[in-house]
Amino acid sequence: MVAENSGAALTDTPMPSQPGSPRITSSLSTPRMRPTTLDIPGLTKSKVSPDGKIAQRDVGSKLVIVMVGLPARGKSYITKKMTRYLNWLQHDTKIFNVGERRRVAASGHGYRLSSTSLERVPPNVTRALEQKAQTLPEIAAHILINGEEPVPRVQVTSPAPDASADTVPNPDNEGIDQSASFFDPHNKKAAQLREQCAMETLDELLDYILYGNGSVGIFDATNSTLARRKQIVDKIRDRAGPELNVLFVESVCENKQLLETNMRLKLSGPDYEGTDPVAALEDFKQRVAIYEKNYVPLGDYEEQHNMSFVKMIDVGRKMISHQIKGFLAGQAVYYLLNFNLSPRTIWITRHGESEDNVAGKIGGDSSLSPKGRKYGKALTRFIEDQRKEWEVRQADKAAHSHFPPLAGDDTPPNPYYGVEGELKNFCVWTSMLKRSIETAENFNDEEYDVKQMRMLDELNAGIMEGLTYEAIKEKYAAEYECRMRDKLAYRYPGPGGEGYLDIINRIRPVIVELERMTDHCLIVTHRSVARVLLAYFRGLKREDVADLECPLGILYQLEPKPYGVEFKAWRYNEDKDGFEYLPDYKLRRATTLN
Amino acid sequence: MVAENSGAALTDTPMPSQPGSPRITSSLSTPRMRPTTLDIPGLTKSKVSPDGKIAQRDVGSKLVIVMVGLPARGKSYITKKMTRYLNWLQHDTKIFNVGERRRVAASGHGYRLSSTSLERVPPNVTRALEQKAQTLPEIAAHILINGEEPVPRVQVTSPAPDASADTVPNPDNEGIDQSASFFDPHNKKAAQLREQCAMETLDELLDYILYGNGSVGIFDATNSTLARRKQIVDKIRDRAGPELNVLFVESVCENKQLLETNMRLKLSGPDYEGTDPVAALEDFKQRVAIYEKNYVPLGDYEEQHNMSFVKMIDVGRKMISHQIKGFLAGQAVYYLLNFNLSPRTIWITRHGESEDNVAGKIGGDSSLSPKGRKYGKALTRFIEDQRKEWEVRQADKAAHSHFPPLAGDDTPPNPYYGVEGELKNFCVWTSMLKRSIETAENFNDEEYDVKQMRMLDELNAGIMEGLTYEAIKEKYAAEYECRMRDKLAYRYPGPGGEGYLDIINRIRPVIVELERMTDHCLIVTHRSVARVLLAYFRGLKREDVADLECPLGILYQLEPKPYGVEFKAWRYNEDKDGFEYLPDYKLRRATTLN
Repeated sequence: MVAENSGAALTDTPMPSQPGSPRITSSLSTPRMRPTTLDIPGLTKSKVSPDGKIAQRDVGSKLVIVMVGLPARGKSYITKKMTRYLNWLQHDTKIFNVGERRRVAASGHGYRLSSTSLERVPPNVTRALEQKAQTLPEIAAHILINGEEPVPRVQVTSPAPDASADTVPNPDNEGIDQSASFFDPHNKKAAQLREQCAMETLDELLDYILYGNGSVGIFDATNSTLARRKQIVDKIRDRAGPELNVLFVESVCENKQLLETNMRLKLSGPDYEGTDPVAALEDFKQRVAIYEKNYVPLGDYEEQHNMSFVKMIDVGRKMISHQIKGFLAGQAVYYLLNFNLSPRTIWITRHGESEDNVAGKIGGDSSLSPKGRKYGKALTRFIEDQRKEWEVRQADKAAHSHFPPLAGDDTPPNPYYGVEGELKNFCVWTSMLKRSIETAENFNDEEYDVKQMRMLDELNAGIMEGLTYEAIKEKYAAEYECRMRDKLAYRYPGPGGEGYLDIINRIRPVIVELERMTDHCLIVTHRSVARVLLAYFRGLKREDVADLECPLGILYQLEPKPYGVEFKAWRYNEDKDGFEYLPDYKLRRATTLN
Repeated sequence: MVAENSGAALTDTPMPSQPGSPRITSSLSTPRMRPTTLDIPGLTKSKVSPDGKIAQRDVGSKLVIVMVGLPARGKSYITKKMTRYLNWLQHDTKIFNVGERRRVAASGHGYRLSSTSLERVPPNVTRALEQKAQTLPEIAAHILINGEEPVPRVQVTSPAPDASADTVPNPDNEGIDQSASFFDPHNKKAAQLREQCAMETLDELLDYILYGNGSVGIFDATNSTLARRKQIVDKIRDRAGPELNVLFVESVCENKQLLETNMRLKLSGPDYEGTDPVAALEDFKQRVAIYEKNYVPLGDYEEQHNMSFVKMIDVGRKMISHQIKGFLAGQAVYYLLNFNLSPRTIWITRHGESEDNVAGKIGGDSSLSPKGRKYGKALTRFIEDQRKEWEVRQADKAAHSHFPPLAGDDTPPNPYYGVEGELKNFCVWTSMLKRSIETAENFNDEEYDVKQMRMLDELNAGIMEGLTYEAIKEKYAAEYECRMRDKLAYRYPGPGGEGYLDIINRIRPVIVELERMTDHCLIVTHRSVARVLLAYFRGLKREDVADLECPLGILYQLEPKPYGVEFKAWRYNEDKDGFEYLPDYKLRRATTLN
């Protein structure tokens, strides 16, 4: 820790965002911070944290992530993805979005917005609400309707920078014609209200961290001025003390193509529904230019004040990290480092039917049944077809995607189409168990990169390996009960016995690798591992993971897209010896207990 | 992958250092790169890589790390540490240091150097050797004696930048008075020779990667000009094709205190043996100033040419990473991200004697014997004493360390002494097994952060859990044999059965956490885990890890220092009920088979 300027703090200097750990009183003479080392649910344990989650008192181990960035820089994409990952690792994480909070409030008042018929808040309503603003913030918020920092739709002169409040408008949330009067010098109340709403959202976040079960709170807004960021840090220090770890995460797009893709995504959003895409793009670009004028990127100030931050430039191209401290922050940064937006498909399936499946036994290492071998062959044929079709589809998309968009052209392009002229590789990953290896044995080694991974092995049932569920229920009634009560936390007894939390931890390198790589991948694995993989990609709730219906013969298809992961499912039809597409397939809880 | 400028390559443009993967011919129409996904010895397996190591043909999965940086920027520290980590993970890694290569050659000619009596290469020798230089590079190299880029000891005018060769002198390796004539305009041969030596070293590295067992080769030199770096990339592309991954790693010190500490470390090195430290520091600073003039840091050029790089600024404070691609590069960057130089002590011991130890059984989860409990109490007392003594020692060091140094003051200061005014925390980590938890049960929870970690559990012996070595030898003779032949690669059969490679993989997060944190830590663990931990900190050879003597009752003490890890050992004396220091303790192979 190199704390160059920590001694020369000015009065308006926020506390360093990474102060170490909370002070605890100690019988030793000098004050001491509480250590903040790794907590991994399922793998670590202490008196204050019997389940391995960060204990409520260990505020120094928790983390607030403050997003920074202009509109259309992929902030939402990053926050959603990071939240999904951290929750999947069992660190309770929640996004607190200032804009959304207001949008909900707005819709409660019936101000539904569309860019074709913009409604205006009636002036008398505005005035009446403004008068109540300071005593009734929950009503005052409604003035802003659909935006944290509202922005005029047409032309405005750029608002003068205001040192005491973050006056940069947030076009993520605009849509109502608030007119230039909103930025009138006498309209200080508007600025005040925006600030108030941001602070209320931050309060909610801090309640979640300090009194709720939260380990990570993500404050999602543009936070594009120094004044606003100082205010955020001040409030956090004021309420949570010096110990809570604060990490700023900024997303910057220097790559024109990437930025235009992001903008194009906005055009397909609700604000521009039904609008001519060319006009909409022009409009959006004009507005972003206004916000840019007041934007202060993370940099010298944060460095001088010893604050933790990450700057992501062109998602995955370049990253600047500063004073990253703490286990959770390290995990988050490592994950961010491995992002990429390359279009590709991830396929997940269980092995074909095994001899033990036929006998109803769990675990073990049996070979495929004849039916299972048939599944393996059909799977190989199907993937080969899909792989070819994908190339055709991508070539077609690349040929028909224009920027600037043509009228009626509303598919968001991927900035990577143009760059990658080559055929995609295809990885086939199996576990190290026979039934999984045999399912993939028909793939041609010259065309597919086939690899076995111990991380993909079935959950180890310890002393219950090789038993049927019936036998377990009979022989180990208490254990069976215990497992039924909390399958996610349950660990099979005996040497090597595992639980779902163990699977999450051993699958983690596979997830990071899937995020890092740009190739297609088919994963041939086992029920528990497939559940945990789907839990990650689909962002499943904790209580649903271990009970997910995940039968043999289903092939899941996942395509990471700039707006989320596209999900499809296919079912093997034994009679036709082929795969059938399952329209509108939804994951659901299993009805049988396994 | 955002490849902005890839289309506008100039003729002198090196290939992108991160090109993806090797092209392979394919029955599909377009050329395709070979995928380069994770390989983890012990956890992954494929036809070309049955042991999980990167297959020789998978050049695209291998990595060349090219160091960049001025002298006294911690390059050697970083390369050594990274090499230790990657080798420990079983990715064969080797440093190729241009300076060292020459130093060896020099000493072979009897040019022993000391700063008090500088020898000069006799002019006639120089001339004679120069004449042979182009035909006999191995002799020509001797002119340079002790340095890749020799530098005059006294005053020289800065050499004019030379676009065609890296003319920046490397003071890591100087020591002989080569006089200013070495930089004479007509002395082009000297520059040629320097280049030739660098290229020979690079050839050695490429042999190691292409024809040896190497997965990672680290090219350690200043590489401080664009011309030199281009030349390196050109040679790599020429010999290894477009597929081999090249990562530039630059170390920069903006923090004055840190830089001065690094310089001070140089003063305690062989070059300045017996010299007055104040004069030596002045001399060294003067020389570094000369090299700075020709130095081109990593930056715009590398970004424009889509090259992979990492810039570490003030070790652990700030890091810029650009176009990091590939599994190994990701691992290396993650590790670099978690460095810190905070002074602290790491203690490692096995649990006290358990009931199973008394019975000679392996594995299991028995409680401590009375003797084991006594050990736990003595350990707690001893650590409490050592903790207090450490604080006293540090305060003393901080009080008596000066910069600039006083005459005779040769202990390198740590830049972190001044910054950290507080008492260090102390973590106590045990496994989740009784004998380990019980050994640490006397630590006061208010003073120590006690945590259990499943990663620290003993190696799982699968079906052989609870047996004695005698019984195993009798009952499973073939397995016993197999294990004795290659203990490191051996994995116990049966569900959950592990081997040493599994331990390495599950201990990895603990190692990264130990590197990341700034607190003291006592680890109470088991034989196999202690062996693997010591293998990391002591950089043990592969073949020694699993056979390390590691008896009950020994307490290992490790102190990370800027120049390496200081290692000590203590032995519990049951009669005195206390710990005895073992002077000059060396790790050695066990004589009994366990």
